Amino acid sequence: MTNLDHGDPGDAPTVPPPLEEVANPARPSAAEEARTVAATTNVGTLASLTRDGDPWASFVTYGLLDGSPVLCVSQMAEHGRNLAHDPRASIAIVAPNPPSDPLASTRITLAGFVYRPEGDELAAAREAHLAAVPAAQVYIDFSDFSLWVLRVQRVRWVGGYGRMDSASEESYAAATADPVTPHAGPAIEHLNADHADALRAMAQALGGFPDAKTVTCEGADRYGLDLRVTTPRGVAVTRVGYAEPLDSIDELRAATVALTDQARALTGR
Amino acid sequence: MTNLDHGDPGDAPTVPPPLEEVANPARPSAAEEARTVAATTNVGTLASLTRDGDPWASFVTYGLLDGSPVLCVSQMAEHGRNLAHDPRASIAIVAPNPPSDPLASTRITLAGFVYRPEGDELAAAREAHLAAVPAAQVYIDFSDFSLWVLRVQRVRWVGGYGRMDSASEESYAAATADPVTPHAGPAIEHLNADHADALRAMAQALGGFPDAKTVTCEGADRYGLDLRVTTPRGVAVTRVGYAEPLDSIDELRAATVALTDQARALTGR
Repeated sequence: MTNLDHGDPGDAPTVPPPLEEVANPARPSAAEEARTVAATTNVGTLASLTRDGDPWASFVTYGLLDGSPVLCVSQMAEHGRNLAHDPRASIAIVAPNPPSDPLASTRITLAGFVYRPEGDELAAAREAHLAAVPAAQVYIDFSDFSLWVLRVQRVRWVGGYGRMDSASEESYAAATADPVTPHAGPAIEHLNADHADALRAMAQALGGFPDAKTVTCEGADRYGLDLRVTTPRGVAVTRVGYAEPLDSIDELRAATVALTDQARALTGR
Repeated sequence: MTNLDHGDPGDAPTVPPPLEEVANPARPSAAEEARTVAATTNVGTLASLTRDGDPWASFVTYGLLDGSPVLCVSQMAEHGRNLAHDPRASIAIVAPNPPSDPLASTRITLAGFVYRPEGDELAAAREAHLAAVPAAQVYIDFSDFSLWVLRVQRVRWVGGYGRMDSASEESYAAATADPVTPHAGPAIEHLNADHADALRAMAQALGGFPDAKTVTCEGADRYGLDLRVTTPRGVAVTRVGYAEPLDSIDELRAATVALTDQARALTGR
């Protein structure tokens, strides 16, 4: 995680630091975050190069073949001609349901070069694209449409203000999309609606904020929960990690119960 | 409007042509469509060039200064460094609330080069960005953030399947965003919920489909209505233009009443 010095003119809100060590700050790597974002939607924006070498941004649909975006574009479209002329490309993907402040949204850039898959890989790429974009069955076999696979060589993930990192080709290829995040919405709602006391105990005993007054859960993934903590010193975010990473959304309830029990044992409440 | 030959393998749905001339097919130009899309949101994807000349796609926020996107980006971010190194850039913008079939969505690409505004233009650009992105007040004066104006030299508009066109720098600069489209949602709902007979009369008498059975309104702009027409021959879309372009959403009701009266006089119903 990079620390940024923005030359703050002095009127930005300050964030209180934790007063104790965060018990388990485990969270997804940038490569894992990027795989998760890529898996949550089927649309992005391609940057390709025109014949003059100018950058050309264009809306595209994609499927995923082991984390590599599979595009289906027409040679009649400018981006199709661009890719055929110069394979260098990147794709920006924004996680769906962005917050009202657009720069708080989660987004990634996957950069590398495109190639035309062949043989078994072509069949797999076709299947991957159709699985993500069912409407493509109408045009995927038109003679002017081609499938392109983006070989991802460089990854940039931005998780909102001040949360950002890069990932290598190898780490992106080895990572997997989060099995919890895409399905965690109802569980998060339930925690916030019915278990405010449990969340406060977690933030106080495990999250480093013994002075937490009100606490809401803002996210859940395979490694833990993101908590938003209001203290007399201001508002902060912290992290409570589970004992072990989860493999499925079905394990989330037991993991949050275990965190609650652990926190209550420590706070004696 | 370009006609495309996709080498159709033969199983795409066919669209019935109108049986009579469309009375008034007036619709927005590509330049007007592009200005309208640009004005409907504050987020897009920038394509810039890395030091190696590779295309880099990245999420950005923007405001509009006479149709030119105004970006506020950090020199600590890759796209900020890219723009400082090479001013060639384009931005892709997707109209909000896209349909479930992503390629039916409306989107544009604005391409040209960026420059740092100065003097009065800097003040106007700052105001334009803040008006569109209020959250930017937190960082717009940070020393690493700069405002860039995209001088739009080339415009590509795609209005969904088979609706696409380019616009010149001059026509884009001279065009204005549609005063009706962004506010037409409730009126369209009302037409579809309560005035199915009026829409059918319009499609039959003015839209070229005397065999229209059910008709829904899918869009409204300053020049007319987009109608979706179901006939025994299949499903088509057509257009009914008003007598005069509208200047405001307040004129839409009178214009649709006039179209209904005209259509009923012609059909004798």
